[in-house]
Amino acid sequence: MSYRLYYWTGLQGRGEFVRLCLEDVAAPYVDVAREDGDEVMNAFLDGEEAGALPFAPPFLTSGRLVIAQVANILQYLGPRHGLVPDSESARLYANQLQLTVTDLVAEVHDTHHPVASGLYYKDQRDEAKRRAKDFRENRIPKFLGYFEKALSRGGGKHPLRTHSYVDLSLFQVMAGLDYAFPKAMAKQKLPLLRDLAKRVADRPHVAAYLASDRRVPFNTNGIFRHYPELDG
Amino acid sequence: MSYRLYYWTGLQGRGEFVRLCLEDVAAPYVDVAREDGDEVMNAFLDGEEAGALPFAPPFLTSGRLVIAQVANILQYLGPRHGLVPDSESARLYANQLQLTVTDLVAEVHDTHHPVASGLYYKDQRDEAKRRAKDFRENRIPKFLGYFEKALSRGGGKHPLRTHSYVDLSLFQVMAGLDYAFPKAMAKQKLPLLRDLAKRVADRPHVAAYLASDRRVPFNTNGIFRHYPELDG
Repeated sequence: MSYRLYYWTGLQGRGEFVRLCLEDVAAPYVDVAREDGDEVMNAFLDGEEAGALPFAPPFLTSGRLVIAQVANILQYLGPRHGLVPDSESARLYANQLQLTVTDLVAEVHDTHHPVASGLYYKDQRDEAKRRAKDFRENRIPKFLGYFEKALSRGGGKHPLRTHSYVDLSLFQVMAGLDYAFPKAMAKQKLPLLRDLAKRVADRPHVAAYLASDRRVPFNTNGIFRHYPELDG
Repeated sequence: MSYRLYYWTGLQGRGEFVRLCLEDVAAPYVDVAREDGDEVMNAFLDGEEAGALPFAPPFLTSGRLVIAQVANILQYLGPRHGLVPDSESARLYANQLQLTVTDLVAEVHDTHHPVASGLYYKDQRDEAKRRAKDFRENRIPKFLGYFEKALSRGGGKHPLRTHSYVDLSLFQVMAGLDYAFPKAMAKQKLPLLRDLAKRVADRPHVAAYLASDRRVPFNTNGIFRHYPELDG
């Protein structure tokens, strides 16, 4: 049985955290909107499909299940594909770390859209400059310092002491921040996160995915956007 | 065995979503910082305690487990106290709905802190006015319209067809938004959410809690803040 992933075409966005899991374990999946167009998601979002009602993409279908919210999807996939340890304490911790990634990703989005998602960036550029300055100076060190500490606590290689979906998400966070804020990121000392990101990128299925045309390049439609004026 | 809840004193904040669950089921718990001061949280946040490393309060300890992130805590408490149905599909849906509450709560916070959590409100009031206008006009209708539709889909009384931690959180969202944005909320037509909020407030343990001094009144230190200039 094949998973069906629903997410906006043309950008990595939040869908990428799910895609990296599916690719890492070579799970069969259809990237539905990329095959049939974004409008295939409307029936779900409008409540015309059975099952859970998604608030927004990404969502995944697995048989009759409809599963939305990235951390929820990863928590579903993790145990099925060996992407999270078995113990309750480790699963709770994985989910907690993933929800902290979720919080960081929302803050990244708001560096370029601090006023309204529905307005263009150019119409909130002044506010974005202020917010991005705080993000670079305070939030990047706080979040990445936290994950660095979590890695150290897990023995240095993995926050959960073994490969998990959290590792894949931390790779994506580092890749995205390096793209969006290269100057700010060059100032961070994050040896464990840097090493983790490299090890994830070298995993055979991940490396093949990153080299494929399924990996949409970062661009200024996604969550991680490079606007030089926001990088200080 | 008693749970130990760790959250900032003097405000409801994100801790309130956990507190409402514990109170609704009359679970024994100690509200640790309220007894011993906020500094008791530092040992956990600084990594000096065993178990999962929290990024921020609230966190809950249950025996040796340390559990942070509101949706993660509720997902832990839910099955233990009959606050979520048994089926996998219902639990995934509950978590998905709760994560959408999380997203909404973050947006509420950013109506008064659109630039930086570390700055005073008065130093970002202009940006706050712009962000709050969009929040009132677009985000409140979108989020609450979604939850109204989820209620309708669940038969009108509960999104999960039975009482759950999601109901308790939706009560808190409605109470908080009514406090912070009374004029904007008066314009919303949300019969199912209004009815749900009333039924939750009338649950015996919840009613007793709301009438007690354990329920800190809403104030301008919390997530939900009433600044008239942000209510249009």
